[in-house]
Amino acid sequence: MNLVTFTAAGAQFWGVGARGGVIALSPGFPQWKTLRDVIAAQAIPQVLDAAAGRDVTHAEGSFTYEIPVPDPEKIICVGVNFPDRNAEYKDGQEAPANMSLFPRFARSFTGAGQPLIRPPESRQLDYEGEIAIVIGKGGRRILEAEALGHIAGLTLCNEGTIRDWVRHAKFNVTQGKNWDTSGSIGPWLVPFTDPAQIMDVELTTRVNGEVRQHDRTGRMLFPVARQIAYISTFTTLVPGDIIVTGTPTGAGARFDPPIWLKPGDVIEVEVPGIGILRNGVADE
Amino acid sequence: MNLVTFTAAGAQFWGVGARGGVIALSPGFPQWKTLRDVIAAQAIPQVLDAAAGRDVTHAEGSFTYEIPVPDPEKIICVGVNFPDRNAEYKDGQEAPANMSLFPRFARSFTGAGQPLIRPPESRQLDYEGEIAIVIGKGGRRILEAEALGHIAGLTLCNEGTIRDWVRHAKFNVTQGKNWDTSGSIGPWLVPFTDPAQIMDVELTTRVNGEVRQHDRTGRMLFPVARQIAYISTFTTLVPGDIIVTGTPTGAGARFDPPIWLKPGDVIEVEVPGIGILRNGVADE
Repeated sequence: MNLVTFTAAGAQFWGVGARGGVIALSPGFPQWKTLRDVIAAQAIPQVLDAAAGRDVTHAEGSFTYEIPVPDPEKIICVGVNFPDRNAEYKDGQEAPANMSLFPRFARSFTGAGQPLIRPPESRQLDYEGEIAIVIGKGGRRILEAEALGHIAGLTLCNEGTIRDWVRHAKFNVTQGKNWDTSGSIGPWLVPFTDPAQIMDVELTTRVNGEVRQHDRTGRMLFPVARQIAYISTFTTLVPGDIIVTGTPTGAGARFDPPIWLKPGDVIEVEVPGIGILRNGVADE
Repeated sequence: MNLVTFTAAGAQFWGVGARGGVIALSPGFPQWKTLRDVIAAQAIPQVLDAAAGRDVTHAEGSFTYEIPVPDPEKIICVGVNFPDRNAEYKDGQEAPANMSLFPRFARSFTGAGQPLIRPPESRQLDYEGEIAIVIGKGGRRILEAEALGHIAGLTLCNEGTIRDWVRHAKFNVTQGKNWDTSGSIGPWLVPFTDPAQIMDVELTTRVNGEVRQHDRTGRMLFPVARQIAYISTFTTLVPGDIIVTGTPTGAGARFDPPIWLKPGDVIEVEVPGIGILRNGVADE
């Protein structure tokens, strides 16, 4: 069973996914306002138990997925984490010694099924399919050997980017990575129970059914355990924090000429065992 | 009167500064948990009124300053915003067309009077004195001509940096700017009522009494109104958001050889009309 956050009739709920819809559990656990609180209370097994035998409360089509953890303290993205991505920069530099990192604000993401928003300021909306991990047990200077034990669950991310604003200024990608509703996270949170769920899984991104990105997590320059260890060297990770773990080669910017997203496109990010994150595109 | 957030005997309060200490007001306004809520409710005049004639509830020495807005949705810092700072990079490039931006997590800051923490991983803790603005009225695509009307108040920031981690990776300054408790914000929030409070004021940083940074905000490459307009182009600003507006030349990294902060040092950031933000340094 997977954990979900969704809205229906203007109210936000958390619960679990089920055949034909979702089961709202939040009304029965007022002490936990969001899944972040559930995770912090280490209560995922408890809420999964509570869902057993329950009927769907909201059928498909009657609710909207939100980011599984809608209120994380921080979202940190790992850049340039697949071998060919480093080569894409064509600057002759070897693979870097440390991973590039940039924060994104939660409001730069929407949930599954919602459109990514192309703003009037740019025609360069681009996709980046990734796996996102959600921290379960916080910590500082987490050892790489123990890092996977700090993961509560897995989800998917379309780390949508306004490409011409990534290098709008001299330093940092902040602007191009933080347009409101330019990316997505979801559709749900898959509880993490086995390293095999991420060690060497296929990651595929399709646009209108055409495969644009396809790689295996075993080829990451900086595997997930190392990401958790490195990031927690400088900042304390807390339950609900999201780490977006890096995208394979093949974003629209890498085509010649580049192929940008436009209204009507459908982007799917898929990882076996996690699911498919599907979003359309709309002009603001 | 200035607004403060502080802790005493393990509890957090907000209130106002007064002669000899602070007046806790939060117990009388349970609907507003932090100053972020007060700001969002546009209630600064109301809480200042409520303090009139009240006695100090916590005398100097019996409380600890916290970041005035301890729970902002986001903190965005402007890099390279004084003319000589751009020249410091010695790359022959003209002043950039757009401002460099990077987010910091709230946990990378402490309040006034608390030590900045030098971690065992680095000897390169450095200071950067800055003015920070706190957003009062949110918005998206705020016009530069109207931008100053969106400011609730002003405070000071020591945008403390672990210098050798700023370029630890190939891209982005994230790591070097986000070490836990490596910077400070405070001591209080000065209500913003007049553009003259920031248009061309002196900004001075001293280390152990020696002036290290000294400039005027009138020389900013990107004035505060332009910062608000530019940032709100891509992300919605909300009440309580903090923009750290840029530091003058003269950080420790610019000396030859560089002069890093060490335990025992005292750093003061001062702006007339806002106050003095004073912090020591301690090893973790």
